Amino acid sequence: MPTIRVDLFEGRTPEQKKNLVKGITQACVDALGSKPENVDVILNDVKRSDWATGGELHSEPKKS
Amino acid sequence: MPTIRVDLFEGRTPEQKKNLVKGITQACVDALGSKPENVDVILNDVKRSDWATGGELHSEPKKS
Amino acid sequence: MPTIRVDLFEGRTPEQKKNLVKGITQACVDALGSKPENVDVILNDVKRSDWATGGELHSEPKKS
Amino acid sequence: MPTIRVDLFEGRTPEQKKNLVKGITQACVDALGSKPENVDVILNDVKRSDWATGGELHSEPKKS
Amino acid sequence: MPTIRVDLFEGRTPEQKKNLVKGITQACVDALGSKPENVDVILNDVKRSDWATGGELHSEPKKS
Amino acid sequence: MPTIRVDLFEGRTPEQKKNLVKGITQACVDALGSKPENVDVILNDVKRSDWATGGELHSEPKKS
Repeated sequence: MPTIRVDLFEGRTPEQKKNLVKGITQACVDALGSKPENVDVILNDVKRSDWATGGELHSEPKKS
Repeated sequence: MPTIRVDLFEGRTPEQKKNLVKGITQACVDALGSKPENVDVILNDVKRSDWATGGELHSEPKKS
Repeated sequence: MPTIRVDLFEGRTPEQKKNLVKGITQACVDALGSKPENVDVILNDVKRSDWATGGELHSEPKKS
Repeated sequence: MPTIRVDLFEGRTPEQKKNLVKGITQACVDALGSKPENVDVILNDVKRSDWATGGELHSEPKKS
Repeated sequence: MPTIRVDLFEGRTPEQKKNLVKGITQACVDALGSKPENVDVILNDVKRSDWATGGELHSEPKKS
Repeated sequence: MPTIRVDLFEGRTPEQKKNLVKGITQACVDALGSKPENVDVILNDVKRSDWATGGELHSEPKKS
């Protein structure tokens, strides 16, 4: 506790993910006073063909 | 906002997913007055071997 | 299956929610061929003070 | 209802998953009086490289 | 790890919830060999007016 | 995208939440190169009586 779930587009590098979980954990420590070992972060890679904004999947070509 | 997450069995075609996110987005526009660009839909494919109803995974043969 | 979770700002009327779940369910029927009785929709009211975009909670006054 | 989502490390055998959903479903029946057919369990395999505790992904070598 | 989230109708007694989390945790121990202290269970009370099946909120009178 | 959901114990102050979403958003900007306006953070307050670790709700007195 806290437990954080991140939905993000797939394709991030291991280095990016490593920095992301480090930064989010630090934010919990700084803002909430959490002990780092109590912070869980779960990353969920989402394909562009599985995420829509405005009714359009992000795998579809943008309308202009 | 709103943000919608859909757990569905894997195996849907891109066309089905495209229609699904369009329909869900339209439902938010019609019912809530949301602006389409504020509606996010995330699809989460679930294997039949990862979804159980009544204690039986959907990958198991049905009892008769 | 499918199971849909909707995060939305609190304050919607019962009528709006009723129309929303009806529309989302119909979208699943139309796009996926789901039987209506297999479609579950769970609504999750979120306070403006619990939802942030761009690092600002929606309860905070907009910067201009 | 209830609907249960389980985030677990990937790599469990089909037999383990089968026993897990059976046990969780039985817990709902015993504790809540749920009918088994109303209990849905969705398993979500998470890679060790997508789960962090204490700011360290579980794919990283442990500090000693 | 594992982390379990349970969406259930509101109105359960503390005793029912206590038994539920105990049973789910034991299921993880038995099926996965998890250490109990690594099992997190989060309960999410859902109002009948926020859960729909077949397009009808569970707060609505059943059609006959 | 990304969209972040945080389950945390209820009782945090508005100031703590404000700092938390700011820090998490900054972590996404720094690690992923996200535009701040594309980062959504949803906070979910959880009662101690709805969160269990090791099969014990956090509202129960600790065993010694």
